Amino acid sequence: MSIDLWYWPEIPGRGEFVRLFCEAGEIDYADMAREQSGDALVEHMHALEGRRPYAPPYIVDGEVVIGQTALILQYLSDKEGLGSGEMETDLQLLQLQMDISDLVEEVHSVHHPVASELFYADQMDSAFEKAGYFRAQRIPKHLIHFDNAIATSGGPFCLGQQWSHVDTSLFQVMEGLDYAFPNYMKTMQGSWPHLEGLQGAVPEIESLAEYLASEQRLDFNENGIFRHYDELDEQ
Amino acid sequence: MSIDLWYWPEIPGRGEFVRLFCEAGEIDYADMAREQSGDALVEHMHALEGRRPYAPPYIVDGEVVIGQTALILQYLSDKEGLGSGEMETDLQLLQLQMDISDLVEEVHSVHHPVASELFYADQMDSAFEKAGYFRAQRIPKHLIHFDNAIATSGGPFCLGQQWSHVDTSLFQVMEGLDYAFPNYMKTMQGSWPHLEGLQGAVPEIESLAEYLASEQRLDFNENGIFRHYDELDEQ
Repeated sequence: MSIDLWYWPEIPGRGEFVRLFCEAGEIDYADMAREQSGDALVEHMHALEGRRPYAPPYIVDGEVVIGQTALILQYLSDKEGLGSGEMETDLQLLQLQMDISDLVEEVHSVHHPVASELFYADQMDSAFEKAGYFRAQRIPKHLIHFDNAIATSGGPFCLGQQWSHVDTSLFQVMEGLDYAFPNYMKTMQGSWPHLEGLQGAVPEIESLAEYLASEQRLDFNENGIFRHYDELDEQ
Repeated sequence: MSIDLWYWPEIPGRGEFVRLFCEAGEIDYADMAREQSGDALVEHMHALEGRRPYAPPYIVDGEVVIGQTALILQYLSDKEGLGSGEMETDLQLLQLQMDISDLVEEVHSVHHPVASELFYADQMDSAFEKAGYFRAQRIPKHLIHFDNAIATSGGPFCLGQQWSHVDTSLFQVMEGLDYAFPNYMKTMQGSWPHLEGLQGAVPEIESLAEYLASEQRLDFNENGIFRHYDELDEQ
């Protein structure tokens, strides 16, 4: 049975982490708001009752409604038998996926340090200052952490030869950072060799290669999480 | 067998969410850095190899090392049979706990909007602006979400009469917000009746009452996540 994915239709954002995993894992899903509209998403979300998701993305799988990107990925991974098969290792994968969510939130807050309700243009000064720290301190801290995690298995993936939801997500993180901070990432090339290896290996997952070359794959843009603003990149 | 909890010794911070759950659930734990020192924590953390936690808190349970507050709580809850007993409901509890982690991160970023590496004094202007949005938009959005989740069961807890890790964490969130934004929270009193009910009910969990009255319970302070700065509160 196909699952329903609900996410904003015009940005890759957090929804793309779910899409990439579903595509790689050949999990049948309907991309509801892209088939219908953003208004349909708002309407659907407001009609949910009880312990509902705080925000998109969320999936509907029969009676089960689940939000939080990391939890969605772990749920689908479990259900489809795409985990490691060991509880301890699966816990570590979920932990890494939650670390990725933290990084994604930080990336967003670089261009929205004051409030997500304000336009970027209204918080540019704080964003400029924050971007300096983000490049100098935070990106390396996060990426060294993930690089070490891959190094544990020898690569190219976190589990070695077998890919997992963490790998499709780390691929998207690296693509997003390359888009948002091209000069900085070029300067730092070679600093995270395992992550760079993973970034090359993930698109070779056969089912994913097809998706990445298709029109379904959304381009990064300045309405999403990973945005390119010249002034926030290294000059 | 007792588990080891590793967290900074002088602030409640994220570690307190783990402490509250362990105390309420009568789970045996050693509060390692408070027994030893913050330096011992740094040393222990650096000695960890492989897929290690990004940051404290983390727990060590035999061979298992787990970071990310929400994951720690779900792991302990599972292990001790303190969940709902139903997979779907336990997933929703984990989702809510991850929503709480997001709120906790936002609370921290109110006084550190530019960089966690900078002192508050060096980012006061952005913090002042951010605090206005945080009070007006973000606190209500988060708390209405949690209030609705409790309303689903009728209260006083998220599962009704049975408390879970989400309840001990929501208690800490409410206590923290009362500490950080006393004027604002007073103004808003009555807006989140289920959360206020939970805030009264959690300290009546017998094992927790004892802990809360003890010297083990750390006071909120201006080195932690929930901080009180007059200028960031409603005047």
